[in-house]
Amino acid sequence: MAATFPLPPGSTIGILGGGQLGRMLALAAARLGLDVVILTPDEGSPASRVSKATIVAAYDDPAALATLARAADVVTYEFENVPVRAVEALMALGVAVAPGPDALRVAQDRVEEKTFLNAANAPTVTFAQVDSAADIAAALPRLGLPALLKTRREGYDGKGQAWIRDATGVEAAFAAVGAAPSVLEARAAFRRELSIIAARGRDGEAAFYPLSENVHEGGVLRTTLAPAEVTPAVRREAERIARAVLGRLDYVGVMGIELFDLGEGGLLVNEIAPRVHNTGHWTQDGCEVDQFELHIRAVAGWPLGDTTPMVQVEMTNLLGDEASDWLTIAAEPNARLHLYGKGEPRPGRKMGHVNRVKSR
Amino acid sequence: MAATFPLPPGSTIGILGGGQLGRMLALAAARLGLDVVILTPDEGSPASRVSKATIVAAYDDPAALATLARAADVVTYEFENVPVRAVEALMALGVAVAPGPDALRVAQDRVEEKTFLNAANAPTVTFAQVDSAADIAAALPRLGLPALLKTRREGYDGKGQAWIRDATGVEAAFAAVGAAPSVLEARAAFRRELSIIAARGRDGEAAFYPLSENVHEGGVLRTTLAPAEVTPAVRREAERIARAVLGRLDYVGVMGIELFDLGEGGLLVNEIAPRVHNTGHWTQDGCEVDQFELHIRAVAGWPLGDTTPMVQVEMTNLLGDEASDWLTIAAEPNARLHLYGKGEPRPGRKMGHVNRVKSR
Repeated sequence: MAATFPLPPGSTIGILGGGQLGRMLALAAARLGLDVVILTPDEGSPASRVSKATIVAAYDDPAALATLARAADVVTYEFENVPVRAVEALMALGVAVAPGPDALRVAQDRVEEKTFLNAANAPTVTFAQVDSAADIAAALPRLGLPALLKTRREGYDGKGQAWIRDATGVEAAFAAVGAAPSVLEARAAFRRELSIIAARGRDGEAAFYPLSENVHEGGVLRTTLAPAEVTPAVRREAERIARAVLGRLDYVGVMGIELFDLGEGGLLVNEIAPRVHNTGHWTQDGCEVDQFELHIRAVAGWPLGDTTPMVQVEMTNLLGDEASDWLTIAAEPNARLHLYGKGEPRPGRKMGHVNRVKSR
Repeated sequence: MAATFPLPPGSTIGILGGGQLGRMLALAAARLGLDVVILTPDEGSPASRVSKATIVAAYDDPAALATLARAADVVTYEFENVPVRAVEALMALGVAVAPGPDALRVAQDRVEEKTFLNAANAPTVTFAQVDSAADIAAALPRLGLPALLKTRREGYDGKGQAWIRDATGVEAAFAAVGAAPSVLEARAAFRRELSIIAARGRDGEAAFYPLSENVHEGGVLRTTLAPAEVTPAVRREAERIARAVLGRLDYVGVMGIELFDLGEGGLLVNEIAPRVHNTGHWTQDGCEVDQFELHIRAVAGWPLGDTTPMVQVEMTNLLGDEASDWLTIAAEPNARLHLYGKGEPRPGRKMGHVNRVKSR
């Protein structure tokens, strides 16, 4: 049965995925009096431990999707590698899904993503579609060296990527990404990495947090400082891009948009994530309404709420064993510790984060 | 098996009670990577919907307590009418319970409470133990008129109380409280109602939030404004009282202490609540570490964390149908809505609250 928006308190939000983003979405939903049901293939997931119910099944399991469709008034997802057919199956069962399948489809394929972005007047690096080593060799004269080869699908946090530094490295790079369908990207001569967390409501209302400045190491986010120091022109350009991207997708929910700051007000979009985003975790302790609540509000058809920053925050990811410093961090003044309830601190695994308030 | 403190992330907190306080405690525990198991007699309780597991049984059900003792590394409670024998049974099973049974025993009986407070050098109104109408008549010359009759046990939010305005009203008042064992209190000539939310850790470390000013209507809290405007002398006196009360109980956790402000720096303790407290809800949006996280930290043996206020907040309870204004409140700038996931908006029932940030 189709839901009527705004969903009143007591309604149920379905979430595809049970990781830390789903967990923090569930906590935000709870604050607003909304229940959460999780669909995840994993037993004992971080999100399931703070949710009303969990369906443990593959994302495209028809019986599981039917159960979720019956239980939920609206469904969202916490990561972009949910199968598009799962979202389409839910919609065929009459349940609203936000963000919709278009955003997922675009975000799952780096060639489609960049093609979409450029069509939306959101600039990216120059790129080429790669199905063979020959495609790489053919594109290099146009893209220049070095160039970055990435698989079209799946890779995240720096996985499935290889730099090509000279023409002799073409075969090795293609082998390094498993000879998978890929995209070859020109190098962006950027000064720093920024991101904007944006949201769009069911009525088209848009909301933006101030930009954050992000530092990655080995392809994994280490820190976010927000609000970042940016010129008004940069902020305007980031918001123009976000508005264009969200509008063209008829998007509902929060989106993370990673940007390269070229200086002189120029920005390129690195990638978009159709979900709450690691570079938005600072909002939990920096803003009246955080990105998780903002997403729940958007998906539930509520007014988006206040994204004004109250303080400047530095967010640091706790990777692997770094989370074993919890006791020290818990004793730090001006620090807010967030742990995800994951068991094994495998190297590089995101176990939690800390938001340090920089100024009041 | 006895737990070792501090409890590491991944440990389990047991909570007796499944209402909104248990729910907000569970949300705070989740932020710190701790799991929660609820014991409540009610199906579908607010807390159970954000917890890893729920045991639905009477608080003193031996099998349920044994299950909870096996599941939890430490147990706490969210309201003061949990049977003391349930806490004692858990301790006999080897699980730590915080706050301990002494705090519960004192808080459950208004005569014991006032006797304890005065012994702890925490001043209260003059009072008399009442077991008959004759006891009332005998005490009135000492206490003066009007005087307030309250049952020793159970009554809360203004229930089980009757004012005696002249000597002819004695029999009627005693009948009004069901002829139950009671306490008769002299009227406090107070200017306003304040409270202090205090905490004590396992190592004796104490923490205090700034005082709040509270407005009750019909015995039910309507609003809290915090930090309240108080003189340094009043704050010192409130902290002295809190320190004395917590220390004498060898208390672990958060306590709410309701105070009458007599002016000129004089304070009387109205009552103590051995738990997180409605007048501390403002800390969710006013402080780095809120009262729920502070309680979980104390109970888990963590450092207590930062209770410094960042802003002034006005907390307003949403009673009964007032929660149906959720959509309007959600659209208000500087307002943070908290809803408890309760089904029926019965008149006077606490359905949620809103924290309005007054200054930045």
